[in-house]
Amino acid sequence: MNKRGLSKGYVQVYTGDGKGKTTAALGLALRASGHGMHTYVGQFMKGQSYGELKALRDHPYITIEQYGDVNCIRREEVTPRHIAQAHHGLEQARAALLAGAYDIIVLDEVNVTIWFGMLSVKDVLAFLEEKPERVEVVLTGRRAPQELIKRADLVTEMLPVKHYYEQGVLAREGIEQ
Amino acid sequence: MNKRGLSKGYVQVYTGDGKGKTTAALGLALRASGHGMHTYVGQFMKGQSYGELKALRDHPYITIEQYGDVNCIRREEVTPRHIAQAHHGLEQARAALLAGAYDIIVLDEVNVTIWFGMLSVKDVLAFLEEKPERVEVVLTGRRAPQELIKRADLVTEMLPVKHYYEQGVLAREGIEQ
Repeated sequence: MNKRGLSKGYVQVYTGDGKGKTTAALGLALRASGHGMHTYVGQFMKGQSYGELKALRDHPYITIEQYGDVNCIRREEVTPRHIAQAHHGLEQARAALLAGAYDIIVLDEVNVTIWFGMLSVKDVLAFLEEKPERVEVVLTGRRAPQELIKRADLVTEMLPVKHYYEQGVLAREGIEQ
Repeated sequence: MNKRGLSKGYVQVYTGDGKGKTTAALGLALRASGHGMHTYVGQFMKGQSYGELKALRDHPYITIEQYGDVNCIRREEVTPRHIAQAHHGLEQARAALLAGAYDIIVLDEVNVTIWFGMLSVKDVLAFLEEKPERVEVVLTGRRAPQELIKRADLVTEMLPVKHYYEQGVLAREGIEQ
């Protein structure tokens, strides 16, 4: 743990249908790195070459790992393999949580894994139960369950006031991916 | 302009009282950098040593400049000097907008400068009027005026569902600063 780390770590949730959940977590990691703090980012629903993966390769303060094998699956497409991957991912994140090397742990899109039935709320609550006092945990993804919102210290809902998807703009490389 | 840049740039707004507006913009810059895209970040209400400033010093794809001279002023504390600084900042951002070197321009906290009367909505709309087709512009800050929301393509409101400020947690280095 960096000596310039947090005196107390909280649990943050970024949820909602609007844009900016994952990027807010990435920006937080970037800002924290400016203070010499270390962040581990585990990405549950991503296994393709997203911009953040390339951008953070060999970053001295931010470690990023992707647990999925596909860019985008629907709820009805979840297979036992996806479920096993999510559980394996949570184990990797747990190792990072307990390693004493990180000030911030991001479970990116973990809310979606719960919504999709790949992890249970209990799995994630058990993870939070093990959170060391000085480690901050950030959970992102749509449809955060009430149990997580109740457990969290800070919850932000990203509300889509206006979205260009409605104008037919598809996900763009560098912006959404 | 990087040849891997955007085919069309949009105007994004991150507003609302919740956490994650500036960090979403920073995360976007980080993600875009993974695709070889260049971002200019102008920070209107900041002139202290925030984490992002340290983190992005000498970054090959992200340029960050701060226009303010104070961490935190209240609306009633705005002086002519602050107004001049904001106008000077917008000029610097305009130079970046028109330089042809950046794919994304972030005007961080610019909504607050309007709310504080340091810039007018007209000033910012005039800036957007000059936006080259392929440049993305991101405006952040609480209380985005309706005229900007109308002009924007994508607007996300960060809604504070639960905030630890209410528990008495103050802004923390590495997380909020």
